[in-house]
Amino acid sequence: MTEMKSQISNVVSDFFFEYETQRQVLVRNRRVGVVCRLIQLGVLGYIIGWVFIYEKGYQSTDTAVSSVYTKMKGVGYTNRSGLEQIWDVADYVFPSQGDASFVVMTNFILTENQTMGKCPEVCEESVSCPPPPLLCDASIKSQIQGHMTGLCLKQTGTCEVLAWCPVENDATIPDPPLLMSAENYTLFIKNSITFPLFDVTRSNLVEGIDGKYISKCLYHPDNDPLCPIMRLGDIVKFSGFNFTTIAKVGGAIGILVDWTCNLDRAVRHCKPFYTFHGLYGNPGETDRARASVGYNFRYAKHYMEEGQAKRTLIKVFGIRIDIIVQSLARKFDIIPTLTAIGSGVGIFGVATIVCDLVLLYVLPKREFYKNMKYKYTDTHQQVSFEK
Amino acid sequence: MTEMKSQISNVVSDFFFEYETQRQVLVRNRRVGVVCRLIQLGVLGYIIGWVFIYEKGYQSTDTAVSSVYTKMKGVGYTNRSGLEQIWDVADYVFPSQGDASFVVMTNFILTENQTMGKCPEVCEESVSCPPPPLLCDASIKSQIQGHMTGLCLKQTGTCEVLAWCPVENDATIPDPPLLMSAENYTLFIKNSITFPLFDVTRSNLVEGIDGKYISKCLYHPDNDPLCPIMRLGDIVKFSGFNFTTIAKVGGAIGILVDWTCNLDRAVRHCKPFYTFHGLYGNPGETDRARASVGYNFRYAKHYMEEGQAKRTLIKVFGIRIDIIVQSLARKFDIIPTLTAIGSGVGIFGVATIVCDLVLLYVLPKREFYKNMKYKYTDTHQQVSFEK
Amino acid sequence: MTEMKSQISNVVSDFFFEYETQRQVLVRNRRVGVVCRLIQLGVLGYIIGWVFIYEKGYQSTDTAVSSVYTKMKGVGYTNRSGLEQIWDVADYVFPSQGDASFVVMTNFILTENQTMGKCPEVCEESVSCPPPPLLCDASIKSQIQGHMTGLCLKQTGTCEVLAWCPVENDATIPDPPLLMSAENYTLFIKNSITFPLFDVTRSNLVEGIDGKYISKCLYHPDNDPLCPIMRLGDIVKFSGFNFTTIAKVGGAIGILVDWTCNLDRAVRHCKPFYTFHGLYGNPGETDRARASVGYNFRYAKHYMEEGQAKRTLIKVFGIRIDIIVQSLARKFDIIPTLTAIGSGVGIFGVATIVCDLVLLYVLPKREFYKNMKYKYTDTHQQVSFEK
Repeated sequence: MTEMKSQISNVVSDFFFEYETQRQVLVRNRRVGVVCRLIQLGVLGYIIGWVFIYEKGYQSTDTAVSSVYTKMKGVGYTNRSGLEQIWDVADYVFPSQGDASFVVMTNFILTENQTMGKCPEVCEESVSCPPPPLLCDASIKSQIQGHMTGLCLKQTGTCEVLAWCPVENDATIPDPPLLMSAENYTLFIKNSITFPLFDVTRSNLVEGIDGKYISKCLYHPDNDPLCPIMRLGDIVKFSGFNFTTIAKVGGAIGILVDWTCNLDRAVRHCKPFYTFHGLYGNPGETDRARASVGYNFRYAKHYMEEGQAKRTLIKVFGIRIDIIVQSLARKFDIIPTLTAIGSGVGIFGVATIVCDLVLLYVLPKREFYKNMKYKYTDTHQQVSFEK
Repeated sequence: MTEMKSQISNVVSDFFFEYETQRQVLVRNRRVGVVCRLIQLGVLGYIIGWVFIYEKGYQSTDTAVSSVYTKMKGVGYTNRSGLEQIWDVADYVFPSQGDASFVVMTNFILTENQTMGKCPEVCEESVSCPPPPLLCDASIKSQIQGHMTGLCLKQTGTCEVLAWCPVENDATIPDPPLLMSAENYTLFIKNSITFPLFDVTRSNLVEGIDGKYISKCLYHPDNDPLCPIMRLGDIVKFSGFNFTTIAKVGGAIGILVDWTCNLDRAVRHCKPFYTFHGLYGNPGETDRARASVGYNFRYAKHYMEEGQAKRTLIKVFGIRIDIIVQSLARKFDIIPTLTAIGSGVGIFGVATIVCDLVLLYVLPKREFYKNMKYKYTDTHQQVSFEK
Repeated sequence: MTEMKSQISNVVSDFFFEYETQRQVLVRNRRVGVVCRLIQLGVLGYIIGWVFIYEKGYQSTDTAVSSVYTKMKGVGYTNRSGLEQIWDVADYVFPSQGDASFVVMTNFILTENQTMGKCPEVCEESVSCPPPPLLCDASIKSQIQGHMTGLCLKQTGTCEVLAWCPVENDATIPDPPLLMSAENYTLFIKNSITFPLFDVTRSNLVEGIDGKYISKCLYHPDNDPLCPIMRLGDIVKFSGFNFTTIAKVGGAIGILVDWTCNLDRAVRHCKPFYTFHGLYGNPGETDRARASVGYNFRYAKHYMEEGQAKRTLIKVFGIRIDIIVQSLARKFDIIPTLTAIGSGVGIFGVATIVCDLVLLYVLPKREFYKNMKYKYTDTHQQVSFEK
């Protein structure tokens, strides 16, 4: 018992009262000394300057959960063959409820008073009109407008189909675009983000933005970079598109709301930054993007007239706006800091290995240094103990 | 040839049959020993306790791709001037198809039987009515309701516009909200997530949830935290809003479905956790959020009557619900484990450096220790070889 | 002054002209040597092979911001009791504007000519019909179809409700599905992604895809993996669903567009990879998924007839398609490279610790090696200096 106790107490005292430190050789050689110190200072400079200061390796990061609400304002005016009409928000925004992703109609092809029935297909002169002799077998792939009945109609040179009649003729897209007035519409963006890891919530209506400011301001990248109200013509211009082109066949624009926040500073410095990007066919792209140009979709308004189901078909060309929120918050955290330090110490070790190699294999006095550095053991040799 | 072979075999045998180990000085000094051991135990404790156990540094992480499907249930009842009406799902949810983001109508301003024509603008008494003398030049910015014709109308004291007439008058928002019955609507959420890195797919209809449970349960954070059916009034309450206030002018609520899963455990422990957040104007926010209060949008139902195009305009005030899925899965992986160990060894090295500094520069016997630790070389001195 | 100068110059020259290297013991023991070299080579192999080559630890990563635009094409045909109808894109896609998430109607229950009024509830024979005696108190939870008036109607055995009359009867879902022709519809996906960290923008219309190719191609995982046009029947098949089943009650499918790009290679190698996943009730799932089967929602088309507000209610069963973009770009970066090297050096240190333990505590000649490795100090003993 007493023996065990004294053994254990020996182990404990050995552990706590001893300290091991490496033995080192101090080489006084100017060339080696300067070169190796420079390598070590370089590694230190990389760790402090690049990893810590530039890349902020001492901070942990988080991305946000986000919600976006939009509202368009503005009225469009058309005069088609003397028929005057205005188009307000309820008419030109799809969908109506203010999502992050929506379409503003800038041009359209209207096919009114369609009823279900049989009528001739419409073909785009010689481009897609079937060559004679006309075949109207039900197996022939229709022009996507209806269901083949089998009849050939000589007057039009096309097949008869069961469809919403009269069939839409979208050969000619109105030029100039019917709703050029869309250039003056305004878009209001409300965006709320939360960084769950750091429990920080921000809105793009930052400090300094109140009801009065909002009623008057208009977004400008230099003068009013935080105003959440943007003119549609400006949005198109900033994205690199030309409004007249994009209004005719449609196009898509991404509005990127970027939140890059350093939460070690006061939270009021966490502000959004807006950029505008043309999508799917920015004029600068190559021909391969021409594979599919513009943005359009078909939309129908159904109604009953004298007990008969009717509809108005609208082929909508418009500007599709996608509001995309990108976020990155950084805040000091002990773990990435210590990990960076730990890895840095490891890199120092590599620098030391390089210098050792130079010392032991390159320099003139390498044998001398080898002997200073290494102590050889040999199982066949008896070596006197040193204490 | 034989010389090269023997050289190569020497190098190989030197490499494989030798082993280098550092020479160390064992300092027997109580003060130094205890302090340095405590520092080393502290670093070890940090690595094991914090990095491995608390922050789970031995696991790699992944976020999920997710899909959400929603379904509202419930019927609203209004009695406006004796006109009784019910509003079912097809009437009060925008959009209809069960997206992750939708609006439930709780209040509205109806402008019926609008036809395209010329009529006076409506202004909100003295707030936005133009001051006399009345100017109705086409360049004056209209009240966003139509296109100026240029005529001044003395009876109303406003300008004539080409618009959908009669023009909407949204000066007074109905109070109490027309669809207070929305409080009893229920929302059913179906959410499917997949963690692609770990090839794990989960649904929020977890084990234990079957058709019978779903037909009866109602979400409650303590009693039924996994029930996917939630009462709208409860959702509003949990988010911190007051139902009557939010129902009058509208508001937005985010339902966060949080999947934080430790995939080293059985996959049935991977369950969703629901939280509710008021967005854009939680009553606790400061005045700056008042810049833009509530949630509304305009929606039109078009129809034909006696050959004339007509529409009913609805200014919808409602609760916008955004279902946001947040996910993080962790699973043991050899690389983050070894990286953490490697960095830990590096930190140990820092601890050693600190102890060395104390030993060599602070203690009384530092000269003695310096001599134990270092072996000096000098290019001018001849030193006997030691083997 | 001169003393300080010479002191400072001494410190500087000591720092720059000296170099410290560890002293080491070279143990010539075959067993130890081979084992420890193998451990060290193993660690080196792990660092180079696994961390660098397999896991690409020398690259930093980024995920993309993405925008998706879809377009359906195709015509459906129904013949219900002699009433022939076709259904085109404007009729069967919800919503119309080409979002990433949309529903294609494959089956429906139509309730036409609904007007607001009082009529009997409809109950699904004996499953949900109230048992006699009939109670029609306003507090009884209605069948979600309307607002209880309090009257009991003996003919139908149900309660009278204020609702859109006649009330919908969705007891029987049409079988076979009305729009089986949906199998031949085609879906066109346009996807644009940007990796903000690396400033790289890609579209899924990659090099080699032009207008001509698009007009003819059809997606196939082996023959045409890059064609952005997919047949709906194929999408359902690839997701593991059976078209007839999913067309009857509806279902949801996720199309995952995966962009995994190594940006150290030419950017033209960055291409999308499409996979198809059945969501919420893949036939292979267990009973718990049956808690909620299929995908449906209710949609109403409002209109006026003879001054009376009417509506057509459609219970839509369809295939919900979610296009989800997953992205990961990697590019060489100096920091993760050096971090991996630094941690690797740390792991080497662990290997060294293990070998030391074997050397000092296991081998027969451990006392000998201990004495070679350690130099003991004792504060009570006088030790001769060595230089």
